[in-house]
Amino acid sequence: MQTYINPPLSEWKNLIQRPVQKAEDLQNIVLTVFEDIKNEKDKALINYTKKFDKAYLTDIRVSSDEITAAIALVSDELIQAIQMAASNIEKFHASQKENKNIIETTEGVNCWREARPIENIGIYIPGGSAPLFSTVLMLGIPAQLAGCKNITLCTPPDESGNINPAILYTANLIGIKNIYKAGGIQAIGAMTFGTETIEKADKIFGPGNQYVTAAKQIAQNFGVAIDMPAGPSEVLVIADTTANPEFVAADLLSQAEHGADSQVILLTTDENILQQTLMQVENQLTQLPRKSIASQALLQSRGIVLDSIEKCIAFSNLYAPEHLILAIENTENYTDKITSAGSVFLGNFSCESAGDYASGTNHTLPTNGYARNYSGVSLDSFIKKITFQKVTKKGIQNIGPGIEKMAEAEELFAHKHAVSVRLKSLNSQNNTLIKDEKF
Amino acid sequence: MQTYINPPLSEWKNLIQRPVQKAEDLQNIVLTVFEDIKNEKDKALINYTKKFDKAYLTDIRVSSDEITAAIALVSDELIQAIQMAASNIEKFHASQKENKNIIETTEGVNCWREARPIENIGIYIPGGSAPLFSTVLMLGIPAQLAGCKNITLCTPPDESGNINPAILYTANLIGIKNIYKAGGIQAIGAMTFGTETIEKADKIFGPGNQYVTAAKQIAQNFGVAIDMPAGPSEVLVIADTTANPEFVAADLLSQAEHGADSQVILLTTDENILQQTLMQVENQLTQLPRKSIASQALLQSRGIVLDSIEKCIAFSNLYAPEHLILAIENTENYTDKITSAGSVFLGNFSCESAGDYASGTNHTLPTNGYARNYSGVSLDSFIKKITFQKVTKKGIQNIGPGIEKMAEAEELFAHKHAVSVRLKSLNSQNNTLIKDEKF
Repeated sequence: MQTYINPPLSEWKNLIQRPVQKAEDLQNIVLTVFEDIKNEKDKALINYTKKFDKAYLTDIRVSSDEITAAIALVSDELIQAIQMAASNIEKFHASQKENKNIIETTEGVNCWREARPIENIGIYIPGGSAPLFSTVLMLGIPAQLAGCKNITLCTPPDESGNINPAILYTANLIGIKNIYKAGGIQAIGAMTFGTETIEKADKIFGPGNQYVTAAKQIAQNFGVAIDMPAGPSEVLVIADTTANPEFVAADLLSQAEHGADSQVILLTTDENILQQTLMQVENQLTQLPRKSIASQALLQSRGIVLDSIEKCIAFSNLYAPEHLILAIENTENYTDKITSAGSVFLGNFSCESAGDYASGTNHTLPTNGYARNYSGVSLDSFIKKITFQKVTKKGIQNIGPGIEKMAEAEELFAHKHAVSVRLKSLNSQNNTLIKDEKF
Repeated sequence: MQTYINPPLSEWKNLIQRPVQKAEDLQNIVLTVFEDIKNEKDKALINYTKKFDKAYLTDIRVSSDEITAAIALVSDELIQAIQMAASNIEKFHASQKENKNIIETTEGVNCWREARPIENIGIYIPGGSAPLFSTVLMLGIPAQLAGCKNITLCTPPDESGNINPAILYTANLIGIKNIYKAGGIQAIGAMTFGTETIEKADKIFGPGNQYVTAAKQIAQNFGVAIDMPAGPSEVLVIADTTANPEFVAADLLSQAEHGADSQVILLTTDENILQQTLMQVENQLTQLPRKSIASQALLQSRGIVLDSIEKCIAFSNLYAPEHLILAIENTENYTDKITSAGSVFLGNFSCESAGDYASGTNHTLPTNGYARNYSGVSLDSFIKKITFQKVTKKGIQNIGPGIEKMAEAEELFAHKHAVSVRLKSLNSQNNTLIKDEKF
């Protein structure tokens, strides 16, 4: 970690920079695979799975027998843990449902919003050594709570054509029926265009490597929405003298082990805390299986001493971290000052791992500075809100003349006329013939 | 309008198609202008305004003198109308504020969300003959209610370097101070990168021609968010025998006059209503100043008879219209069945013009089928929601062991360790030394 003691404000601009990503242009390969999937559908999907995942599939759908077999392989302890996490995630996301709130803006003019599920949801879960069943919970639970009709889960098979049992157990637990052995660009293509087997998605969620990220980005040109722009994971910890350096070091490392491109930042008002944390990082690092990944991430990470918690918060707001840990006293005095962050962890016992797995908050969060303009995934991500309005006779008499004036000034005379014919009918002798409309 | 009587379900797939857009590839021109704006900033902006808008500017900022002069030019009647609309829009959008709702998911684990404004907002208002001051209300009011810090408004000047007075009056009314004479790709570039005068935006809103649309799309590659994908405007009307053909025709035409690429669709259970509405359309069309535009839009528009309101709703849900008008009896029996639409107008006196200007709902809505996966603009569009969590000692003791199990199964041992060090500290003799944290 690079360290800085009280850097002047003029240097902050450089200190909030993320490591530069090598942005390989994958557009051509994505468009080629998409074209094949669009034309050849399941057949192309099976071919690409052979080519990229080295798995020879005859059926891309995971069968109920496979699910039953997988469930038997998951330990009781892990099952209990997943169920505990699922229960918390469900409680928190269920609380995000909104009630209908009818507003009479003018007498006779009533407006409100109603939520509707996005019908067809695609969830991508990466394969590889670590099976991200926690992401199945984070995306599947709010999709179910929102009432999404078709939830499709794609995840790449291993070379024997199998999916990790914990992923299948988790998907089954939360009621996801349509699980497919498909990964990479071809999986995103299948959810973008639909195949004989896989439903076309309206919105695609989930993390992935650079190919998946590029494919999701380009899928948007074909009418699909995505959860949010992707970027490497990151944490910023603000620590005062009450922080525990062993805890802080563990939190920094739990982010650093995600990937060599992860970034961790420690801001503290106390140089001792910085030094002790750095020592703890060195100690704990030696025991980590993913030591080499974490070490690389630490090279581009920063420990900075600033002279007040207020300055630390100001720095954090400029950086807009995905995860923000406040390992300080009286956190409640500072939450109002936080203007940009994905998810915030308050106090010494709120470790990032809690939010990553089981506290109830979502772990799909904006990175790379996108916390300035995007929210993390929530129930909102799986719904759209439709506005409704009911204007009565009285209502159009109240607001109609103003609308006529505005439409005229915008030179949209048919807009004006749509009001004029209604006002005219109400002033005419036929008035009584028009059925009254009450709200 | 093309008409269809009880088309079989198998034909619906064709009938819900939008007119094909000619998608000119504007990427190169956008990237060229963006590069110039990024390097030369205000100077490039002034040069492009000379080139594209034929206006010779020395200062791109609208001065307070210009605003004062503009206000004097707006009629009292129009001022009253704009103030009435502003009041309704403000009431409805203010009702969208959410209260903090703290959820204890497990004893000692508290999670909640807090809204924060997106700090830097860019609003684009097109120029041309019709000054869209109503869009200033629709974007500016929720931005102000959300508490956005910097609200920038760009709109192209006429050849004399002036902005329409109604736009300046409206922007001033709702407290937008930073108004700039800039249009097209160069305006979107200026808000994307920032110039000496114009603040860099985190999110850009507003309608525009194909150049503006392409520039907004590409701005996303530079870290900026946008309101939603763009497309031509559209309305779908469902009418039964209680509908008034004169009203329905006026509503269809008020959409058709928007642009030659607009689409209007009439679904009815009654062939008479279809025929009478078509006659009314012919009659009213002759009196419209924008007759030629509306006529072109009508060429690609459809009138369809279906044998039940349920079928009409099912068709509408597949089409996912930007605007949906229910000119039918007992609209309350059908609202629950609507699954995809931007904004819905209930009953004979709820004309689309009401929502376009003054009922209180927003008129920036998803078109081109995007009502399947996007909401219209609302207060939500100007905020992000940050999740917070506070896990106490008791809390981590409750969920910690489960997190350890899950992190281990995902092979993320530093994630596990961040919990383990905390649980260990609570079990150790030093327990009493750790300051207690209450929520």
